[in-house]
Amino acid sequence: MTGSHLEREIREQPDAVRAALRSAGPVADALAARLRERGPLEQVVIAARGTSDNAARYAQYLAGARLGVPVALAAPSLASRYGAPVVPRGARALVLAISQSGRSPDVVSVVDAARAAGVPTAAITNDPASPLAAAADVVLDLDVGMERSVAATKTYTASLAVVARLVGALGRDDAGLAQLADVPAFMAEAIDTATARVPALDAHHDATHLVVVGRGYHYATAMEIALKVRELTGIVGEGFSPPDLLHGPIAAVAPGTPALLVAPSGAVRDSVLEAGAALADRGAATIRLDDTSAADLPLPAGVPEALGPLVAVIPGQVLALRWAQLRGAPVDAPPGLTKVTETR
Amino acid sequence: MTGSHLEREIREQPDAVRAALRSAGPVADALAARLRERGPLEQVVIAARGTSDNAARYAQYLAGARLGVPVALAAPSLASRYGAPVVPRGARALVLAISQSGRSPDVVSVVDAARAAGVPTAAITNDPASPLAAAADVVLDLDVGMERSVAATKTYTASLAVVARLVGALGRDDAGLAQLADVPAFMAEAIDTATARVPALDAHHDATHLVVVGRGYHYATAMEIALKVRELTGIVGEGFSPPDLLHGPIAAVAPGTPALLVAPSGAVRDSVLEAGAALADRGAATIRLDDTSAADLPLPAGVPEALGPLVAVIPGQVLALRWAQLRGAPVDAPPGLTKVTETR
Repeated sequence: MTGSHLEREIREQPDAVRAALRSAGPVADALAARLRERGPLEQVVIAARGTSDNAARYAQYLAGARLGVPVALAAPSLASRYGAPVVPRGARALVLAISQSGRSPDVVSVVDAARAAGVPTAAITNDPASPLAAAADVVLDLDVGMERSVAATKTYTASLAVVARLVGALGRDDAGLAQLADVPAFMAEAIDTATARVPALDAHHDATHLVVVGRGYHYATAMEIALKVRELTGIVGEGFSPPDLLHGPIAAVAPGTPALLVAPSGAVRDSVLEAGAALADRGAATIRLDDTSAADLPLPAGVPEALGPLVAVIPGQVLALRWAQLRGAPVDAPPGLTKVTETR
Repeated sequence: MTGSHLEREIREQPDAVRAALRSAGPVADALAARLRERGPLEQVVIAARGTSDNAARYAQYLAGARLGVPVALAAPSLASRYGAPVVPRGARALVLAISQSGRSPDVVSVVDAARAAGVPTAAITNDPASPLAAAADVVLDLDVGMERSVAATKTYTASLAVVARLVGALGRDDAGLAQLADVPAFMAEAIDTATARVPALDAHHDATHLVVVGRGYHYATAMEIALKVRELTGIVGEGFSPPDLLHGPIAAVAPGTPALLVAPSGAVRDSVLEAGAALADRGAATIRLDDTSAADLPLPAGVPEALGPLVAVIPGQVLALRWAQLRGAPVDAPPGLTKVTETR
């Protein structure tokens, strides 16, 4: 690795998660207590873009599995373009925005509309002075320090931690909240292991296409690893759930394409491995990211399934960094990208 | 073109939409009337896979813009894998499944869970004898005849028509419903125009990567054209909204990559064209699909914006068919795909 901001920020992630839980944890607890007073939460609408959209996907599965609450990912253009913001009806809803910069006008517009309608709003952001923070009722400040690399890493895992804290508090899941405190140590282990193991995959650094498969909680992991690889390397990285992949997109996987299988222990592992077998049948070069001895990119054993995404994304980040370096790409400032993308 | 099932089914689409409106229209009207009696609809959860997921995306924007209702796309694995189906709370919700075959067990499981909880359920399907039809309270039978090509075309546009009919009936939008009846004629015009104009794009048939950009109602169009191209040709076709593209994925667009811009008149056209300019700056070869004289793939003038996706997908279908033929691919049965994908 090099002395890039990206490398440093990848390594900072265990501390970033601790900082976010310290900063936003009590706020999340108070928000959850207020929401619980209103009765069972009926729906959550999340507005996010880019990497934060992958944090939203994690929230969708976690809130679904733990709270049984439908989570709709907002279509921000309804507010910003069609003048028809989608606002959940009733006070037993939450509109949650996730944006490290807090500066996407279309995300802010979703929160503005909800707040005007009296729906509780909260923002997960790394900038408590941002327009998004000003718009929301409650600010869940990540407080992880400025992220200088254009590709988001520590703000992503810190956002996942705050989502897990909020869902845990809403569900009064004390055991889960206790497990969350152990996650930074698993993350540190994952960073070291990935740094040691990623060079064995150097032969794939000049790929043109990468498929990443994950399901359930790790649908977010697959999507985020794919995004990180494409941002940093220019490889066309795509994330899929096994059913989505098998319903058509697998037709465009050529022989030799690397296919990363995010398949730690849990309810969906067999499904991901089945998709991996179908990919191997097409001649794809499968790479296993899991917690078994067969893994190419091993994960620490013992990470609770629902918190796995905070850890499993790390080997993907390290892989993306490594391949970018081997390709001679500028890892802190990929060509054509900006840290703040102000889409309307 | 050839005598393939696919070509025939593309050409059948105007009649298929008429058939679906005849078959499912009155059922949709009755369902809407029953739902309206319960008061304003509070949320919709849609379960779908593959092409039907793109019909769900259209429903998300249409129901959002016309009814102000949040639409959550179900995460079927929560039901099928985690034993934690997400069921909307309260009777003012609708769970809608979309599946031409009606045979995806994970989609059926979402409907089963909702029905058991007393939430109204409906299924848009082309097989009224399917397990999905048996599971749902209300069956919106497309009745478009068997679709023999593995790549879905007529069941997609027919599903969009039924979605538009249902949303129109829920919103008592008589003007919109009247416009829907005119759409098949626009579709027929689009088929003829696309057939004439697509050969001018033959130079791109050996591309390895295709980016399709659309927003709002046409986010579904972009995603569906990308899926059709990848299913039929093996080209890595990807659909993006402009904000999603600009938030990172554009980094993996290499010079010479064809980029199809779905930009008919409407609230989001400028946004798509701005993304097109950013793609052109990276050296992408932009292709315009719109209703102006500058279009490479012209659309008929006068199609109402909200119904545009029934028409705008057609040039993409014709393009995918043409490129598949030029590549020597078997258009009715792409290697490795099956008509019914029974994912759990």
